[in-house]
Amino acid sequence: MSGRILIVDDSAINLKLLEARLTAEYFDVVQASNGEEALAICRSEPLDLVLSDVMMPEVDGFELCRALKSDPRTTHLPVVLITALDQPSDRVRGLEAGADDFLTKPVRDLPLFSRVRSLTRLKQMTDELRRRADTATEILTEAEFAPSSVSELPEIVVVSDHARLQARIARSLQTIGSVREFADYDTAFAAVQKRQVMLTVVDLVGGNGTDPIRFLARCRASEKSRGMPIIAITAADDDRTAAKALEIGAYDYVQRPVDCNELVARSRTQLARFHYGETLRMTLERTLELAVIDGLTGLHNRRFLNTHMSRAVTEAERRQGTFSLIVADIDHFKRINDTYGHDGGDIVLREFARRLEASVRASDLPCRIGGEEFAVLLPNADERTARVTAERFRAAIEARPFIISDALELPVTVSVGLAIFPRGGQEVSTLMRAADAALYRAKSAGRNQIAIAA
Amino acid sequence: MSGRILIVDDSAINLKLLEARLTAEYFDVVQASNGEEALAICRSEPLDLVLSDVMMPEVDGFELCRALKSDPRTTHLPVVLITALDQPSDRVRGLEAGADDFLTKPVRDLPLFSRVRSLTRLKQMTDELRRRADTATEILTEAEFAPSSVSELPEIVVVSDHARLQARIARSLQTIGSVREFADYDTAFAAVQKRQVMLTVVDLVGGNGTDPIRFLARCRASEKSRGMPIIAITAADDDRTAAKALEIGAYDYVQRPVDCNELVARSRTQLARFHYGETLRMTLERTLELAVIDGLTGLHNRRFLNTHMSRAVTEAERRQGTFSLIVADIDHFKRINDTYGHDGGDIVLREFARRLEASVRASDLPCRIGGEEFAVLLPNADERTARVTAERFRAAIEARPFIISDALELPVTVSVGLAIFPRGGQEVSTLMRAADAALYRAKSAGRNQIAIAA
Repeated sequence: MSGRILIVDDSAINLKLLEARLTAEYFDVVQASNGEEALAICRSEPLDLVLSDVMMPEVDGFELCRALKSDPRTTHLPVVLITALDQPSDRVRGLEAGADDFLTKPVRDLPLFSRVRSLTRLKQMTDELRRRADTATEILTEAEFAPSSVSELPEIVVVSDHARLQARIARSLQTIGSVREFADYDTAFAAVQKRQVMLTVVDLVGGNGTDPIRFLARCRASEKSRGMPIIAITAADDDRTAAKALEIGAYDYVQRPVDCNELVARSRTQLARFHYGETLRMTLERTLELAVIDGLTGLHNRRFLNTHMSRAVTEAERRQGTFSLIVADIDHFKRINDTYGHDGGDIVLREFARRLEASVRASDLPCRIGGEEFAVLLPNADERTARVTAERFRAAIEARPFIISDALELPVTVSVGLAIFPRGGQEVSTLMRAADAALYRAKSAGRNQIAIAA
Repeated sequence: MSGRILIVDDSAINLKLLEARLTAEYFDVVQASNGEEALAICRSEPLDLVLSDVMMPEVDGFELCRALKSDPRTTHLPVVLITALDQPSDRVRGLEAGADDFLTKPVRDLPLFSRVRSLTRLKQMTDELRRRADTATEILTEAEFAPSSVSELPEIVVVSDHARLQARIARSLQTIGSVREFADYDTAFAAVQKRQVMLTVVDLVGGNGTDPIRFLARCRASEKSRGMPIIAITAADDDRTAAKALEIGAYDYVQRPVDCNELVARSRTQLARFHYGETLRMTLERTLELAVIDGLTGLHNRRFLNTHMSRAVTEAERRQGTFSLIVADIDHFKRINDTYGHDGGDIVLREFARRLEASVRASDLPCRIGGEEFAVLLPNADERTARVTAERFRAAIEARPFIISDALELPVTVSVGLAIFPRGGQEVSTLMRAADAALYRAKSAGRNQIAIAA
């Protein structure tokens, strides 16, 4: 898969050389000769990757990286830094600035192309998700955003049959996660299938006679661990194995001798990327849920009731069973609203919803279907069960006054209509009408009571 | 990237050989020795690809393919058929059964692995989307599903500097789409950037001295054409170019001499897959929209109003501007509902929403925020503009009675409250309360009128 890459370097010669190499591999190349120009391009053009020199006058590579990663418009863009200095401390500094990867000059073909390809592919996989989540972010209010679930220590797995290396890696990663160690690759694979692991570091040297790359392949072939970040460890200068690992599904690699500071920095990068993707997913899930949830009470809405009533009808017809529908309307709600304002009305609606939820079985579906109208779908419930539920609910509303404020307690009652499938109606619409008619009778007969459709 | 592949063959030897080859390339392999077993596995286990022999007793490869493609649970699974017969008619028959690709025995390594990799990658890219869309399908009622937009002929582009071949391909594809022909690759690239093209067939032999694979790379590097299916044409038996084309981003290839029936069949497969992805995307978009849309009237809902009010406040503060908020409540709606039932009430609400929409400017945001409560956010509107809009709207409701049924026309009126930022309130909540208070005054003063917050 090709991609669009921005290369940044203050040397025209370097730009030309790098462009030629990337173009020969069919990448689409855009150039910038300094950090400011690069920033402007990233903010205005669609790109898949930024490949930047570190040492530049004015805005250097570290600063460019920090600027890109702190701007919501560009934070998803992978950044690879290139430097002439092969200093581990420099690598760590780059990764801490938010760089996704690091290459040292002279940049060899294999590391260059394998990392560029791997990062481009990951980026393109997230793009689709990111675009949907952007729409979702437009829709959600801040309070509705799913809380990020990174309060706990992320679970990290380390796999190596080299005992000393395993212990050294595990010790250094304990600063950023909860680490489990495995010497056997099959046991490790079974472990990452069972629980949500956020990062796996796997040693590709050794493997007890089995091919350790197969561990990578199995993780990727399984849906449970498909998206889990994996960092591979290869022998010193073994670029070929590193490239193969990235191709099969590792997200990053380090070569022996393992510099633990670098490994920790790379691990942080992987965890941050994983977390970014999970947040996108949660935002999207949350927005999809909103389509069937009533914002004020948190109950399901009329759309949800309709969808599930249709299914309940189909299901009950199939096995000649039954189900019940309760509709409920708060008595004199208009008066409450007019007297105590919308805020007072909202307090009543929320407390009403809370008591309704507490009165029904776990399998029942309580919904708010209009201003002061509520409904409950009771799967498999016959008349007796439905009547007991409705009465329990009616009594729960009447039992104690609603607290509007410290100074104000308000007695509230509810009228309830009940319809049983198929006697009360054989379709969603007729059943709903029958329940409404029963509700109307309950109101006419003096409110605060239950009526059942004939 | 690795993946999980089901291989189906009635010969144990063939299964063993194929398994060995795929396992050596780090794929995870599952086996079935007949069509029924294969179907059962596909329905119960997560897979990325099915690779099936055609000639099998009982359920053969064609039937297996048809069964998988017609079942919503498995329709997304790519299927590659393998046969001993190198008959073009057989290939076409397989593609018409819904197969995504076709390999002939003896299966060479390059076509095998390049196609398997390319299809696995495409499938994994759709998976994420498909999972979200499944949630969406749970939520949407049938009526809410976005209509599929394939009424028109799909636009197809053919690129080749070989005039006779170009003409022959274009002629055969005219049966399934509207075809545009290009001899120049740059012009063709510019064309697919400008309009939504559903399929491009590109000849990789020739190219007027430029490398035609670059056309592929540029299409993939550009966001506009990234998802567009591309079928490449290579020289006879040029497996190397075909593999490169799939790696860079072609979705399929045919080799010269081009069998037009086969090309048409492969084109149909690509169009169907493209359409499948687009439908998933539309379903998802539609569901995301639903979170901010009121199901009954089609207006935006309270959530949407809140989000946009917050933005309007920020925006107006920034440039020291103004905006207005209208809240409106149908007079005596409770009486309408009680007298004519929910159906009658719903008719009034929908017609009310229609007249509201017709009374406001295109930039205004009319919303339904409660049972019979509506609101309009008027960006940049000062008191004079807001008052004119509110009066136009009030008059439109009063102007003619609402038609409930052939026999029943009902006069309806509305009370309106108006608040102007920042005079009426400097925050979302205070502005809303001010508009509500004004609405209350309009009601108290006899209804069917407008009141403005002090």
